[in-house]
Parts: sequence; C-alpha cells; structure tokens
Amino acid sequence: MAVLSINCFAQTSERIPTKGYALYTADGDLKPYEFTRHEIGENDILIETLYCGVCHSDIHQGRNDWSPQTYPLVVGHEIVGKVIKTGAKVTKFQVGDYAGVGCMVNSCRHCEYCEAEEEQYCLDGRVLTYGNKDIYHGGELSQGGYSNNMVVDEHFAVIIPQNADIEKVAPLMCAGVTTYSPIMHAGIKRGDKIGIAGFGGLGHMALQYAVALGAKVTVFDITDEKRDEALAMGAINYVKVRNQEELKGLNNTLCFILSTIPSAYDPMLYVNMLKVDGELAVVGLPAAKDAPKLTVTALGGRRKVWFSVIGGMKETQETVDYSVKNGIYPKVEIIPIQQINEAWKNVVDGKVHFRYVIDMQSLK
Amino acid sequence: MAVLSINCFAQTSERIPTKGYALYTADGDLKPYEFTRHEIGENDILIETLYCGVCHSDIHQGRNDWSPQTYPLVVGHEIVGKVIKTGAKVTKFQVGDYAGVGCMVNSCRHCEYCEAEEEQYCLDGRVLTYGNKDIYHGGELSQGGYSNNMVVDEHFAVIIPQNADIEKVAPLMCAGVTTYSPIMHAGIKRGDKIGIAGFGGLGHMALQYAVALGAKVTVFDITDEKRDEALAMGAINYVKVRNQEELKGLNNTLCFILSTIPSAYDPMLYVNMLKVDGELAVVGLPAAKDAPKLTVTALGGRRKVWFSVIGGMKETQETVDYSVKNGIYPKVEIIPIQQINEAWKNVVDGKVHFRYVIDMQSLK
Repeated sequence: MAVLSINCFAQTSERIPTKGYALYTADGDLKPYEFTRHEIGENDILIETLYCGVCHSDIHQGRNDWSPQTYPLVVGHEIVGKVIKTGAKVTKFQVGDYAGVGCMVNSCRHCEYCEAEEEQYCLDGRVLTYGNKDIYHGGELSQGGYSNNMVVDEHFAVIIPQNADIEKVAPLMCAGVTTYSPIMHAGIKRGDKIGIAGFGGLGHMALQYAVALGAKVTVFDITDEKRDEALAMGAINYVKVRNQEELKGLNNTLCFILSTIPSAYDPMLYVNMLKVDGELAVVGLPAAKDAPKLTVTALGGRRKVWFSVIGGMKETQETVDYSVKNGIYPKVEIIPIQQINEAWKNVVDGKVHFRYVIDMQSLK
Repeated sequence: MAVLSINCFAQTSERIPTKGYALYTADGDLKPYEFTRHEIGENDILIETLYCGVCHSDIHQGRNDWSPQTYPLVVGHEIVGKVIKTGAKVTKFQVGDYAGVGCMVNSCRHCEYCEAEEEQYCLDGRVLTYGNKDIYHGGELSQGGYSNNMVVDEHFAVIIPQNADIEKVAPLMCAGVTTYSPIMHAGIKRGDKIGIAGFGGLGHMALQYAVALGAKVTVFDITDEKRDEALAMGAINYVKVRNQEELKGLNNTLCFILSTIPSAYDPMLYVNMLKVDGELAVVGLPAAKDAPKLTVTALGGRRKVWFSVIGGMKETQETVDYSVKNGIYPKVEIIPIQQINEAWKNVVDGKVHFRYVIDMQSLK
C-alpha cells in the first residue's frame, strides 16, 4: 500500500491519507472508510499500524453508550506499529522503531497535571485518541487505531522495546495501564488479600500485575467459564457472583478490590467485602444508564471508593516496560479487520478469552 | 435527689432508678420519664450526669429518620458527669472523677476491630448508647444521656481531665471525636488547603482541629449567618453555597473536604472541588431519604470518597486530651432540660450557635 512506503511524503504540510474501518452510525456495522490525518508536525511521528486491540470502551463509545458521537468514527486506542516518518524535532523515535499509542493523543502540556505527567487529568484540553475535537489541529475529529496509520506527537507515543511480543503488546496501552496504575497507586504488596471484579480484558491484566506483586487474589465474575484460566494465572480463589453460596463469608475480608466491570452491578456487593480502611478502585466504565451508584453514608468504616482513569504517558511507558520485563501480556486472539463486527458481538457477550487484537496487515 | 447520693445502693445487684426526658412517639415532644438502668457490674461505673450535649443525631434517630425506634426513648450521647460509684474491678476511675460517655456503651471486645481499639466498627455486638438492644444486659433497650445518671463499663467511659471546662466538654464525646478522627486519619498538615462543609455543631469543631493543625480552611454553609464566626475561628474563606458567585473558581482547588452536612445535598459539588488524589470524608448523616448518593464513575481523578463513624474509645480519649490541652471546645449554649423541645426545633432550623448543652441539674 503506497501510503505506507517510507518517506513517500514530500513535505510535512501534506495531510496523510488513511484507510480504516469506521462506524457510520451508532448502531450500524463497522465498514471500510478512507480519510486523512493532519500533517506531520515537527514533534510528530507517523506510525504504520501493525496491531490494534479491541477494547470494550470502543464499543461503548462507538454505540453512544456514554455520550453522542460524530460519525463516521474510527475507534481503537490500543495501537502498536512501526515509526515510518519523524518530524524535524523528534528525539525519542527513529524510523523503524516500534511505537505505541493509547487513549490520548494530546493535552495542554502546561497545567499542573500535564506538568506532573498525569496528562489523563489535563485541565485544559486533553484530546482522546478518537471521537474528540482536536483543538490543536483545527478542531478536526480525532480518529483511532482501527486504521493503517497514526500521526501523533512523540510525547503521546510510548517506546515499545524491540524484544516485546509485538502481537500481544498493544493492549498494554489501555487494558495494561488502566489496571497497572490503580494497583500501583494503592500500594499493593506481597500477601495482601485483594479482589479483581470482572475477569475480561482488564481483569486478566489486573490479575497478572497483582500476582506479580505477591497479592492473594480472589477473582469475581458473573460466569464460571474463566475459572480455570484465573486459577492458572495465579488467583487463589474464583467466585461466580451469581452463586450466593460462593459469596458467603467474604464480607470484611479484603483490603483492596479493583472493579473492571463494564456492565451494570451493585458496587456495595464489593464495598461490603472490604475491611475497615479498605479501598474499592473502579476502572470499568459501563454505559451511562448502568453506571454504578452508591449511598455515601452506607460505605461505613473508612472504606474508600475511587475512580481511576488510564494513566499518564510516563506511567504508560512504565507499564509497558514493567510488563515486557516480567512477561506480562494479555491473552490475545488475532483477527483480521474483516471479523471486527463478529468480534464486537463476542465482547459484548463476554465470550472473548481475553482480548481481540486486529492484525492491521489485513487492511491491505 | 436521693438516687444520686453516693453509696445509697446496698448491693450492686439492684437496678438503678433513673429520671430523664424521653420521646414517647417519633413525632411527639420530649417529656419526663422514669425508668431503671441495669445493675452496676464489677467493671461498671455509675455516673451522675452533669451535662449532655444536643446532637442532630438525637433528633434524626428519635424521629425515626434512619430506622424505626422503640419508645419511650431517652436520647443523648454527649455525656459528662461525676463518678458516684464504682464496681469491684474498676481501675480507671475513682469516685469523684469526671467521666465522659459518647455514642457506645459496649461491644464484643474480641473481634479484630475491638482488639484494634476501633470498637465503633465492632463486627459482633456493638451497643449504641441509646435505642439499641443491649445484648450484654438481657436485651434491654439502651437509654441515653438526657437523664440524671449512666451505668457503663469503664472501658466505654473516657477520663475527663480535672482542668477541663466542664460545661463545654460533653460535645467532644461525639462532635469532637467524629471530626477529629477523619481529620487525623487524612493526615491533614500545615498549609493544606481543605474544606469543611456544613458549619454547625460538627463543622465548628472540625474547623478548630484543622486550624490547630495549620490547614487553610474554606468553610461551606447554606447561609451567611455564621460567616463572621467562621472567620474568627480561623477559616481563610467562607462560602455560602447557595450563592453561585461564591462557588466560582473553587473546582480542583482542595485536597480534602470533610462533610458534616446533616441534610440533603449533592456530594458531587464537593467532589468537583477536589484535586486529583483528593478526599471527601463524610461524617454528616442526613435522614435516610436525604442520604447523599453519587455515581462512582463520575468521581474522576482518583478522588476518594469515604464515610467515617465517630472513633474508638482510645481515639475518643485522645480527642478529649488533645482538645482540653489545646483549648478546643464547642461554642455552647447551656439550657435547662425543660427547654429541650424548643432547642430541637432550633437545631433542625440551623439556628443554634453552635451546640446546646443541657444542664442536668435542671432535672432536680
């Protein structure tokens, strides 16, 4: 595909032609779509996309579950590829390097959170990888990684080590950092009794990080299907939450629970399992109508409830480095882009073990 | 009053005659009531009540705002008095000492939280000072401090220093420890920008503790009436939350907020004022129908929301000692018990500056 030949662009002022798969309506199928990305600025890199993970958030956002979207919309924020062009001032990457892009492609760069390298909490202009008005590029719609290339400021691209398992590394950009960050912020350590609620793309990453830290992890899910896999990954207990028998005796036993649940649930089920001073950290983001609600005065016992949003660029790099070093990857199923609609159906039905990753060569 | 003469009881096996004021129905007035308390056990002390604070919780619980109660009910859990008799094994008190009783009069004494001296989180049989089935005394109804005496295990009585301001010390047993505890658990330190939401009996104690620690405190209330008093107590800012102008610019500015609000409000107003990693601790307990609710996934930015329940006996003693040492007392208005119904009305209307304390000599 000519567009991906190295240095085929005479000037950085040209817009970049891109092929991808887009939603044309909130409830329709994803179909082929051609569009252009903004020109390569002096701090930007052009990446030929190799793999892109399929996150439940792609579906929620694409289907208007959170807020109304603009179409056609190309989703995808677990992106890994090869750098094929660099702007004049780029220092972090050279052509040929592997680079990763996650959920953000820009931010204001000057507010207190940007300065603290927590760009995900930028107060003044964070741009999400897709579906966001890109105020740094004339207000165009940001378009994601179900496509053959990305143009991004090098600050928002992560160095992917050359020894990374390239087929599996993309989901670290969202499922990885989204679970790594709260587990590290909570200070989980050897011997801590903790819970992971929801055992899907995020949950199975969280389990691996927690086990690597030496925690004693109980996994909670609505089905029995992934019991053996959870135990094989190091969980000491697996609870099917729809079985009342399995829930008995769990109240007041855990010091931390990470909820990755992407659908409706009662957070008090998990709050009640916490000991005094325990924490329920939530990263799963159900549709707005199913968002978990609670009564503050029912929490009791200094149990803390908080919500965590991905991680900053520094922490995303740390996640990738830690994961590659420790051999922590998602279990993936590689699919061609032509199977994306079937894959989405399986994600919604909880039938994926554990992450679909699109092989972007299939776009050619 | 004969009942309060020292050593007028021949044996500890006799029940103790008591005079107080009780609610006879959820919506009626408080009226005189005579009853008996359980006998003085070997670890118990008999206290002649000198003063009892009037807490908004007395009204909420008495009026069935939280759950159905049994009547007649004698409320009151901010009690200070003089020890007039001691059981055979009592070591902490001597006859003539001042003693305080707060929100608890017993607990299981063996669960992990009792062993950690956090009896307020007892897993197996905490007895609240009033309206609770006292499983350690035949299941009788516990009756509170709007009365001329208390019989309590010495473990659940706090030593009141002889140099304490005895008219003002009673509210430390609830309003004091309820605010002292979360402020200390949150680790508030010099220069921290924090908020106190609700400037009543609890709020004005919280302000004094926070100022003593060197925090820069913004006070939030629904009226303007207490602005001057808050500033005089050391607040750097006072915000009337019903005035939109005063709320401008406050989002993302505070690292900690303590909500003492006893009526309906939106906790997200305060969550949004927190910086990333900030904490909203809630101690105010509105009627069940007005309990503050929130959507977990709207919290954003690792903002932690938690609820704190009074404090353990060790921490209550610490509160009293710290307060007396630092001259931290509630602003009180001393009333005779005969004015209690009018006082309750003023508490509900937010018209008390800041705590009514009943002079129990008025019962005679």
